[in-house]
Amino acid sequence: MTVTGEMLIGATALRGREGEIHATDPATGSTLDPAFGGGGAAEVERACALAEAAFETYRHTSLEDRAAFLEACAQAILDIGDELIARACAESGLPRGRIEGERGRTVGQLRLFAGVLRDGGFLQARIDPAQPDRQPLPRSDLRQQHVALGPVAVFGASNFPLAFSVGGGDTASALAAGCPVVVKAHSAHPGTSELVGRAIQSAVAKCGLPEGVFSLLFGSGSKVGGALVADPRIQAVGFTGSRAGGTALIKIAQGRPQPIPVYAEMSSINPVFLLPAALAKRADAMGKGFVGSLTMGAGQFCTNPGLVLAVEGADLDGFLASAGTALRAAGAQTMLTPGIHAAYVEGVSRLSSNNRVQTIAEGIDGPGPFQGRAALFSTTAAHFAEDETLLDEVFGASSLVVRCPDAETMLRLAHELEGQLTATIQMEPEDLEAARQLVPVLERKVGRILVNGYPTGVEVGHAMVHGGPWPSTSDSRTTSVGSLAIDRFLRPVCYQDFPQALLPEALRDGNPLGLARRVDGVLGQK
Amino acid sequence: MTVTGEMLIGATALRGREGEIHATDPATGSTLDPAFGGGGAAEVERACALAEAAFETYRHTSLEDRAAFLEACAQAILDIGDELIARACAESGLPRGRIEGERGRTVGQLRLFAGVLRDGGFLQARIDPAQPDRQPLPRSDLRQQHVALGPVAVFGASNFPLAFSVGGGDTASALAAGCPVVVKAHSAHPGTSELVGRAIQSAVAKCGLPEGVFSLLFGSGSKVGGALVADPRIQAVGFTGSRAGGTALIKIAQGRPQPIPVYAEMSSINPVFLLPAALAKRADAMGKGFVGSLTMGAGQFCTNPGLVLAVEGADLDGFLASAGTALRAAGAQTMLTPGIHAAYVEGVSRLSSNNRVQTIAEGIDGPGPFQGRAALFSTTAAHFAEDETLLDEVFGASSLVVRCPDAETMLRLAHELEGQLTATIQMEPEDLEAARQLVPVLERKVGRILVNGYPTGVEVGHAMVHGGPWPSTSDSRTTSVGSLAIDRFLRPVCYQDFPQALLPEALRDGNPLGLARRVDGVLGQK
Repeated sequence: MTVTGEMLIGATALRGREGEIHATDPATGSTLDPAFGGGGAAEVERACALAEAAFETYRHTSLEDRAAFLEACAQAILDIGDELIARACAESGLPRGRIEGERGRTVGQLRLFAGVLRDGGFLQARIDPAQPDRQPLPRSDLRQQHVALGPVAVFGASNFPLAFSVGGGDTASALAAGCPVVVKAHSAHPGTSELVGRAIQSAVAKCGLPEGVFSLLFGSGSKVGGALVADPRIQAVGFTGSRAGGTALIKIAQGRPQPIPVYAEMSSINPVFLLPAALAKRADAMGKGFVGSLTMGAGQFCTNPGLVLAVEGADLDGFLASAGTALRAAGAQTMLTPGIHAAYVEGVSRLSSNNRVQTIAEGIDGPGPFQGRAALFSTTAAHFAEDETLLDEVFGASSLVVRCPDAETMLRLAHELEGQLTATIQMEPEDLEAARQLVPVLERKVGRILVNGYPTGVEVGHAMVHGGPWPSTSDSRTTSVGSLAIDRFLRPVCYQDFPQALLPEALRDGNPLGLARRVDGVLGQK
Repeated sequence: MTVTGEMLIGATALRGREGEIHATDPATGSTLDPAFGGGGAAEVERACALAEAAFETYRHTSLEDRAAFLEACAQAILDIGDELIARACAESGLPRGRIEGERGRTVGQLRLFAGVLRDGGFLQARIDPAQPDRQPLPRSDLRQQHVALGPVAVFGASNFPLAFSVGGGDTASALAAGCPVVVKAHSAHPGTSELVGRAIQSAVAKCGLPEGVFSLLFGSGSKVGGALVADPRIQAVGFTGSRAGGTALIKIAQGRPQPIPVYAEMSSINPVFLLPAALAKRADAMGKGFVGSLTMGAGQFCTNPGLVLAVEGADLDGFLASAGTALRAAGAQTMLTPGIHAAYVEGVSRLSSNNRVQTIAEGIDGPGPFQGRAALFSTTAAHFAEDETLLDEVFGASSLVVRCPDAETMLRLAHELEGQLTATIQMEPEDLEAARQLVPVLERKVGRILVNGYPTGVEVGHAMVHGGPWPSTSDSRTTSVGSLAIDRFLRPVCYQDFPQALLPEALRDGNPLGLARRVDGVLGQK
């Protein structure tokens, strides 16, 4: 497959005329060929018109046909072969192993949703049969299923050029729901985007689906992205990126004549709580494990542990010593983009020069132009409480340890945290009572609570929640990872007294799709 | 029980000092005793503080305890006895039979949610067991359930002083979800509100729950209502009312440092499509049935059929003749409030004086000060398409019949409708192909599609959807009626590698609550 620099509008490829986008290899700083043409209003219009035109046909495809399409997308991505791995590595600076793993995850996501479709539970089929003899009034026959919202706009994220990008989680869950997708590619990895986009485009053709099921646009976030969210045919938005970017899209979505939901994942510092017995027993191991999580992928995960809270004392000192040693040995790593690198350097320097903050350790400096050097800081609970900037996410391998005078203070600080994607508790059985106090507080703050693990590494499964209260995301009621994500792009419709021939198949007598349906409130078996 | 004019803040009753609210008997125009004291910022603050204080205890009550509490609320409302019926009739002008039926529905809603709690399916419990030997990486143990959002603000609606008010659907579903509720009473029925509020207050005490589980405020929408939605402890809002009122609350909710979801039901004209064979076979019966639905409750239902679309010709003329005859015989009915009556008179007069519109019939005029006279209008498809004001809801027993030149025009007009709560198709078997074209269009526009019925009358059950795309509601992904409404007040949380003792009961090994859980994606039995 050749990377041409073209956008993919339905079945066609065309070169944008509004500015050129060049990918940079962050390992070297060199510009990668080819140049990508940025799109404009005409391409947004065309992609949305095709998506709208495709919607009726696509949403009425059978569950099996849609599952087969998702599997075809997965296979087509694999079929690109090593070219995809090489291009994604070059455009992101991420090591080959990571990109190979991410490809596996991306393909796995698409296949997971194929299974979700074959299961059919996401339709939430319900039937309240008619009661013609009920007194004082007869009851109508009422049946309910969930239907697709409509065309969806997906914004690729910089930090997962495969798994949160063109063929990533938002695309997979929207396509599974029956929604055509228009992707605005992230400008950091346009070649990777084009390759994956062409794979999906080929799967659309192979499966005989209307071309508008998928389009891929390049261009500026404010121009192409803004126009996409404002387009009246778009019915929902998936976004992973900065708080500024997310809130800008939310504002556009809410200002439309018909406002639409925006699922924006924005920022998180993922607090880690070290409970006393855990600190007493395994301060050294926790220090090493923590630094492993902190420095993974140059710290460029939404779930990176950017905050540690513990009661001060010799055990915490032991943790800091161990973490400091591990961190000082951590090599510099190429960051995703020059912009992310610059923001990281600025964030670390802001902490270094903050007189409320003590620098515990810095990682090894590196020769590359955009390499990030890990950093570990510490502060007191009093200082932490009085300086709001210490809550700001520093995207990269930087973390802040808050030394609390006692357990009550630690609990109070937990209460005062903003919404987060994750929180982690390091504990031993002796810490159970302390953990019991902490868990209810954290349940209100985060989407996922971990015990004795580290938050990086987000399993793609049925029980995963990758989401959380504002400002970690714009909508705590959903997840962007795992099979529950399909709910984002669905809404319920009730069919009253429909003749069988007019009912959706999922709701017909005799249960032709073999679904687990709720009849008169009682969940049946598949 | 005595109506005192006091607000209920947790376990206490106190008189507001910011202005007086007087209920009016719309049948006579006379003022009802007592005067109600309006609340201010201090009472909003106190109610929210109590709700927040109650939240942790309340959300951790067992499913059975919460079910018993909802049943205690239902019983306490029944126990008020005839005083409640008499007061609601006096404050709303609604006939006794209607209010008695509405009480049954209100009590039924609370009991329905008790059943939802005992079923436990709403928790959506999921378990992905650990796979310690998985290659290349082991899988953690991941478990997910849905948890309550937090304290909820509920705004009572004018048109259902029981079923959509203090102890109505929003309150029932929020309480079921585990959310404390602060109600802002509608000023049209403060006495009814106080009576129901005292019933719920007594149920809170009887069940030994923290007092902050429920509070009831009186006062102005902009002042008390606005302060309530802006309060940082409130985590979601339920509202049924006007588009102006709903959008004002949405704006406040979105402008908070932490934006929150607003479930606002705002306006709907509920189109009815008369297909050719149905018109040919039963124009006369449909005319009568339609007018019965239109004039029920003085037309003051969110699902009132305010728009009829059909292909012009002798059969439609027959329908108009039948409907006209029925409507001319329809007696005037007392409307809910002087304000609603004034708006209805203004809306009808706007249609009467619109030269694109023909008046088909008017109902009997009445002697009461705030009686509404039914009205039926007609226009052509061309006129309808060129005058946007014809899409405005006229709250009351007024409807507009659009005469379409052909089926294609009718379908096109359906495409161009705004979001609605309902759409109705009148059809015979010969109309099946036409209906097949219409249903996919309507699925995108409405929350409920009816065949051969009328949209008034919203069954409270498991398959009901009372909701729909903007502007009928602010969030098409939910319903305000039926058991699915509990989803509004929940969000998912994932627990990773939790020790059994720390897990929520719903997710423990051995399934102690006997739930239908999804294990590794496969739905188990209860």
